[in-house]
Amino acid sequence: MNSFEFRIVKKDKNSKARVGVIKTPHGEVSTPVFMPVGTQASVKTLSSEDLKEIGAEMILGNTYHLYLRPGDQLIQKAGGLHKFMSWDRPILTDSGGFQVFSLNSLTKTSEEGVRFQSHLDGSYHLFTPEKVIEIQHALGGDIIMVLDEPVFYPCSFEQAERANQLTSNWAKRCEQAHKELKNKGFKHSQALFGIIQGSTYPELRKNSADALMKLDFPGYAIGGLSLGEPKTTTFEMVDLCISCIPDEKPRYLMGVGTPDDMVEAVSRGIDMFDCVLPTRNARNASLFTRFGRLIIKNSEYAEDFSPIDPECGCSVCKNYSRAYLRHLFNTGEVSALRLATIHSLYFYMDLMRVAKEAILKDSFLEWKTEFLREYQSDEKDEQNNSRSN
Amino acid sequence: MNSFEFRIVKKDKNSKARVGVIKTPHGEVSTPVFMPVGTQASVKTLSSEDLKEIGAEMILGNTYHLYLRPGDQLIQKAGGLHKFMSWDRPILTDSGGFQVFSLNSLTKTSEEGVRFQSHLDGSYHLFTPEKVIEIQHALGGDIIMVLDEPVFYPCSFEQAERANQLTSNWAKRCEQAHKELKNKGFKHSQALFGIIQGSTYPELRKNSADALMKLDFPGYAIGGLSLGEPKTTTFEMVDLCISCIPDEKPRYLMGVGTPDDMVEAVSRGIDMFDCVLPTRNARNASLFTRFGRLIIKNSEYAEDFSPIDPECGCSVCKNYSRAYLRHLFNTGEVSALRLATIHSLYFYMDLMRVAKEAILKDSFLEWKTEFLREYQSDEKDEQNNSRSN
Repeated sequence: MNSFEFRIVKKDKNSKARVGVIKTPHGEVSTPVFMPVGTQASVKTLSSEDLKEIGAEMILGNTYHLYLRPGDQLIQKAGGLHKFMSWDRPILTDSGGFQVFSLNSLTKTSEEGVRFQSHLDGSYHLFTPEKVIEIQHALGGDIIMVLDEPVFYPCSFEQAERANQLTSNWAKRCEQAHKELKNKGFKHSQALFGIIQGSTYPELRKNSADALMKLDFPGYAIGGLSLGEPKTTTFEMVDLCISCIPDEKPRYLMGVGTPDDMVEAVSRGIDMFDCVLPTRNARNASLFTRFGRLIIKNSEYAEDFSPIDPECGCSVCKNYSRAYLRHLFNTGEVSALRLATIHSLYFYMDLMRVAKEAILKDSFLEWKTEFLREYQSDEKDEQNNSRSN
Repeated sequence: MNSFEFRIVKKDKNSKARVGVIKTPHGEVSTPVFMPVGTQASVKTLSSEDLKEIGAEMILGNTYHLYLRPGDQLIQKAGGLHKFMSWDRPILTDSGGFQVFSLNSLTKTSEEGVRFQSHLDGSYHLFTPEKVIEIQHALGGDIIMVLDEPVFYPCSFEQAERANQLTSNWAKRCEQAHKELKNKGFKHSQALFGIIQGSTYPELRKNSADALMKLDFPGYAIGGLSLGEPKTTTFEMVDLCISCIPDEKPRYLMGVGTPDDMVEAVSRGIDMFDCVLPTRNARNASLFTRFGRLIIKNSEYAEDFSPIDPECGCSVCKNYSRAYLRHLFNTGEVSALRLATIHSLYFYMDLMRVAKEAILKDSFLEWKTEFLREYQSDEKDEQNNSRSN
């Protein structure tokens, strides 16, 4: 019995955008969905109650971080990640591949897996496809991910091809390990997603996708994008990958992104997103609004007693002024980080909500045009792909 | 018209403890009350919504800090401190005397006032009694305090006597300035409290109290205690000061304190408290419970999946385990600071609530004995008087 399900509720008439529902053992998630990143069993600065108030439907946990601290065994003893962090809605756990490679300068990759040193204490560890599935079963996320070898940008064709080969071999082993653990009676209701890699090479993207489709995963992620490549390339790759994924499978664009990129990706048929931008930027006093970024420390807000955005429905905009938030940042008050995070995440949640409404009304393209007209994108945001913060 | 009022609701039969109500322009406060310290227009790590959920009835703001940053003029433009920080319940503002002397090694005190350098940028400033009243009128707190010259412990008789003289002269000038501003139509509903000083010298305490009583302030604070003097001395001074204050005036023991000291002080007739201990200790992973302090980082809690205190009604105890809170502290998650603060402040609020109940039922002394039996005091807490954190 597998209780994971994806159902398309509505396809937009004029684009590839769609509204869907992901069913998981911890409830339903409506797509397109943005998943706040909760690297260490916590979305930075927020409590689970905060996340609910903001309207988060599904959050991300990081296998790499949780394996190292507090340890997947401890979390399993606690009754799983949901219980440990007091979050009863769906969780997706990353496989840790991205973190192993991005947080460690010394990794040793072989067919077996990847050896790495902990970024915390230098201790040695080995992630094999089997191991990361075992860890993710212990964590108990609703959606779990295969171990992949991500490549960064730029990357030679040969390097990307080699990584692709490993990624697809590992995907098979992950699938096998997942099946075996299911049969052993472990958390049988988790859904394992594949990850399409292939850098910016259409041929490799296609090969990667084809290999993964044979394994018939219940959902597919597109990895290794928004790493500094030109925006046109990003979306060429997105389109290509989407064309390889059957319509009825959810599509997850990993580590993306900015509000304008997400809207663009939705119009191309992406269903799921995660990114550290709203949370990380908020902690640096950079807030997302429908007009673009607002740097709340700027002196122009010193005596600005209006909210961040008078039309925003978040609790911060309802209660506090720009001047007050600026004061909290200027005086180093920790509460500034949380209030800023609440606003920016709420903005991301609301963006998906409004996008869904537009799709349901077949007015998505008009809405998208209007949104992009108003939204001032900020080039600095665009090279910030990272799956943990 | 002065809308400040203090009314005694019930006196305990077997002690000097009492339950009262303070009426202010921003609503009523039931006493004994503990006021969380909101130094910089924010109780550290918390939002105003958090404070309400915890049950805070009145909070403290610091004249010294707010004058320097963001400036009392800016706060006045925002519509006052209540509006600025989105807190519609009562606020008491300190006069800044304590901070000027404790945060600055170089102060120059004269009859005129105290010259000091900002601890932020070294700029020079002068606080006169008139100036601090003017600032507090601009901030708009419901209860404001006279400028005093606090002395630290130990302190010679001569030094304490000199400071006393200044403190009582300044009190007169504060009272005069307050009256004049009232007549000018400034915030006329603020209540100005006097502060009894005199270090550990009974004679000086008495002199200080006598001088202040002549000015007939609507309430009296006892300053300069819990600064390292023996506990017996603290309470001798408290008793002496209380004996000088008319029964019908609220009595505020500044900068105190630990839960056991507060309970002791309530039994002697104190109505109001403030202290940074619950908030500052929480940020250092030291939590208050009815059993004493709990150092949540201790390894014994690594796999302890029970709440901080299963009988505590706070949102943290309802939702999170010791193991989870320990994990958040160990991984440096900012949310740990807020969750710990919520628990410890809730404990302080609840302590006052239960004390009030006991007084109303004439069972205060039994309750006190029971509480002190269970509560393991921690000597380290006892020398921590500070009016700002």
